[in-house]
Amino acid sequence: MKYGNTNTIIIIVANCDYMFHYKIVFKLFVSFIIIVMLMSFIKPDKKKKIIFFGDSITQLGIKPGGYIPQLDTLLKKEGLTDYQLEGAGISGNKVYDLYLRIDSDVIAKNPDIVFIYIGINDIWHKVTHGTGTDPDKYEVFYKAIIKKLTDKNIKVIVCTPTVIGERNDYSNQQDGELNMYSNIIRNMARKQSIPICDLRNAFEKYLTENNSKNLEKGILTLDRIHLNDKGNLLVAQQMLQAIKEMK
Amino acid sequence: MKYGNTNTIIIIVANCDYMFHYKIVFKLFVSFIIIVMLMSFIKPDKKKKIIFFGDSITQLGIKPGGYIPQLDTLLKKEGLTDYQLEGAGISGNKVYDLYLRIDSDVIAKNPDIVFIYIGINDIWHKVTHGTGTDPDKYEVFYKAIIKKLTDKNIKVIVCTPTVIGERNDYSNQQDGELNMYSNIIRNMARKQSIPICDLRNAFEKYLTENNSKNLEKGILTLDRIHLNDKGNLLVAQQMLQAIKEMK
Amino acid sequence: MKYGNTNTIIIIVANCDYMFHYKIVFKLFVSFIIIVMLMSFIKPDKKKKIIFFGDSITQLGIKPGGYIPQLDTLLKKEGLTDYQLEGAGISGNKVYDLYLRIDSDVIAKNPDIVFIYIGINDIWHKVTHGTGTDPDKYEVFYKAIIKKLTDKNIKVIVCTPTVIGERNDYSNQQDGELNMYSNIIRNMARKQSIPICDLRNAFEKYLTENNSKNLEKGILTLDRIHLNDKGNLLVAQQMLQAIKEMK
Amino acid sequence: MKYGNTNTIIIIVANCDYMFHYKIVFKLFVSFIIIVMLMSFIKPDKKKKIIFFGDSITQLGIKPGGYIPQLDTLLKKEGLTDYQLEGAGISGNKVYDLYLRIDSDVIAKNPDIVFIYIGINDIWHKVTHGTGTDPDKYEVFYKAIIKKLTDKNIKVIVCTPTVIGERNDYSNQQDGELNMYSNIIRNMARKQSIPICDLRNAFEKYLTENNSKNLEKGILTLDRIHLNDKGNLLVAQQMLQAIKEMK
Repeated sequence: MKYGNTNTIIIIVANCDYMFHYKIVFKLFVSFIIIVMLMSFIKPDKKKKIIFFGDSITQLGIKPGGYIPQLDTLLKKEGLTDYQLEGAGISGNKVYDLYLRIDSDVIAKNPDIVFIYIGINDIWHKVTHGTGTDPDKYEVFYKAIIKKLTDKNIKVIVCTPTVIGERNDYSNQQDGELNMYSNIIRNMARKQSIPICDLRNAFEKYLTENNSKNLEKGILTLDRIHLNDKGNLLVAQQMLQAIKEMK
Repeated sequence: MKYGNTNTIIIIVANCDYMFHYKIVFKLFVSFIIIVMLMSFIKPDKKKKIIFFGDSITQLGIKPGGYIPQLDTLLKKEGLTDYQLEGAGISGNKVYDLYLRIDSDVIAKNPDIVFIYIGINDIWHKVTHGTGTDPDKYEVFYKAIIKKLTDKNIKVIVCTPTVIGERNDYSNQQDGELNMYSNIIRNMARKQSIPICDLRNAFEKYLTENNSKNLEKGILTLDRIHLNDKGNLLVAQQMLQAIKEMK
Repeated sequence: MKYGNTNTIIIIVANCDYMFHYKIVFKLFVSFIIIVMLMSFIKPDKKKKIIFFGDSITQLGIKPGGYIPQLDTLLKKEGLTDYQLEGAGISGNKVYDLYLRIDSDVIAKNPDIVFIYIGINDIWHKVTHGTGTDPDKYEVFYKAIIKKLTDKNIKVIVCTPTVIGERNDYSNQQDGELNMYSNIIRNMARKQSIPICDLRNAFEKYLTENNSKNLEKGILTLDRIHLNDKGNLLVAQQMLQAIKEMK
Repeated sequence: MKYGNTNTIIIIVANCDYMFHYKIVFKLFVSFIIIVMLMSFIKPDKKKKIIFFGDSITQLGIKPGGYIPQLDTLLKKEGLTDYQLEGAGISGNKVYDLYLRIDSDVIAKNPDIVFIYIGINDIWHKVTHGTGTDPDKYEVFYKAIIKKLTDKNIKVIVCTPTVIGERNDYSNQQDGELNMYSNIIRNMARKQSIPICDLRNAFEKYLTENNSKNLEKGILTLDRIHLNDKGNLLVAQQMLQAIKEMK
């Protein structure tokens, strides 16, 4: 978009040049260069767009107290003001739902960076609907999503899924699968040298230290899955870190 | 491909003709016509390729007694000798597995007609693995498969899924879902005017008449799902009908 | 209870008889016989207690518009006033939940007749929780419930499960299993000569005639499972029939 | 049984005593006492019967190399020769299957001690059949089994379920549930002061130390679930410990 504007100006210059003497043309050209240089100071604006691509956690994450506004605040506190954040979360989404809507909901919006935060429903729906995602298919579709983005030179940060239940002794029903699918993401990220925001790891650490009663919910989540303000803050903090490491 | 070759020859003739006298050109043209006519006798081959795209039923369907050789026999009996049949079935496949491998396993092979025969695992794996396919996603991926094929001018025939259990009073565990997903296919076919081979309907009729003891298996299947020779024959007969109606 | 009262009277007579001359005793005895005979005409109150033993459908069935008050109304309309109806339904119950609470919730209350109406959750929870009941275990526990009741000379009427979804072309997800488990009940009832109230059969007939749009809910249910007033009425009508046939 | 024999002797003595003079009787009585005392040294055979009550792991556990013969060997090595071991495992059993067959398969055989080793299928069948056991029902039936045994003065040792997959970083699909159900058993044992044989804990420790490649199977199991000789040995060792602590 910004580059598009610049090109337009150049074309106008090019179309006009034959109407003037060379000197005038030269002066205009110099003026143009100066203007462009000034613009880079005056409008350093061209903000980098970050899209958060996920499920209901992300759909709720755009609300006040959600991880997206909280991340926005954290970024500004750090003086990182050149980011524009946008949510693309839909409740109930699994990895292939993201795959099916990536063109319209993400790529069409020209992001610079995309956080992929998906997996809870791929695991959870196994028991609640019988329609979870096989681990190998999870990986295939996840890779296809990454490829679609990197083919467009969009930077990708992958996130591990957070929690379904907050007990800290691995006695939540889906802990085994959350760890399994997190390992899939970790291995993919390592092999493809993609930055990772290891939310699950951060949640595990936090709950080990802050859930002495081994409660199922109420520490970082409202209902075992969806994040309360503290949970949203923890996600925001991890994402801030990932953005800073990317620069 | 065949039309491609012909065009190439015509272009060569076209490019060459101004270099010669008319007589020579005429002789060449006559020779060319004769060669083409001879080719049509020598290579009456240009057979229409039909690919059967599915799961383990199709993977087994290429074996002796399978529905593909049985259909081949039926076609020849009817004097329909210009078809070349090819299986593309992989055990355990669900609708999105077909979607993921359609380019390499089907489109790359330039079929003229494709039978899509998928759905058993989308339903069955709900209970056996927790990784079945939601009805709405089944439809989305099914439509995407159809679109990929019709975009390449490949003709499509959709099949309804056969059976998981052969009882004829709708008391097989997945009967409800098999009917539900069959209805999805029927509606899709009707709306898009795509020919349908309603295997489930044919199986229901056959079992109503030929399963008086209401057995779970052994009439058309070996194990409630995979077809015995009679089951393969019934599929072949239905497909023969669909091919004849398409002409 | 009523027999208890009668015994008490006899004992009083027995205890008193030695205090009087034989003549007086004889007169008293004759009077007593007359009183007892009169009582059998007056039919004071000794109502037959019917307990409805089930899940959430029965738990809701005791509310105004529920099948229990509607059945009460129907019985009275028919002049069958000697029944006392009592609900024993708990939401989420499966067959073994009934088994575990039958002593405290049913037998301890001395019913004359018990309607067993269980099975929806045994089937439904397969997909929603992964904790449905295997068909063979369903039968084992069901038989154990029947035995516990018949051992106490309590009459049993078994009911087939109604619906999970109201489509009338067997395209509701659990239709296959509902039919399978209904067949288990039908076979059990036939072999043990236990009266059956075939609710599923009645619902199927009603929906074939009254659900021309093949809707999933709203005809006899609110939400595919729990009954609206018409659904409750249909259950009440079927149960009335079963009670009348039992007499 | 042993007490039965003793009683028989006493009765014989009692029946005989009137036939003799007191002196002879006294001599006989002294002799009898001496014999009884000697018998208590000879310790004829009155072995304690231990029954292992469980699923396919126990069904296989009676075979050569299984945990029952291995435990027999370990007991003898320790000089604990007064135990008689008997398997009561049936493939596919869940907690309520044990409940349903406890009278015929366990109590009728007059055991002194019963190891309860059940839970794998209660968890595993959630995903493979949709018919696992809810945690609360698991506990209810487990307690009912314990009660049936302790009511007969049979000693109970409860075992936590071993593994479904041998990865040691809690990334096996059912790790969360195995831990959850193990916690149910641990809490029950603690509250009721029942000795526990914490197999899961022992397996976790062993796999942390001996599965450096984080393999899914092949260390203690053949197929993620059923035990190889090493797995059977580890179970036998844990049970030996539990028996020794019970004495």
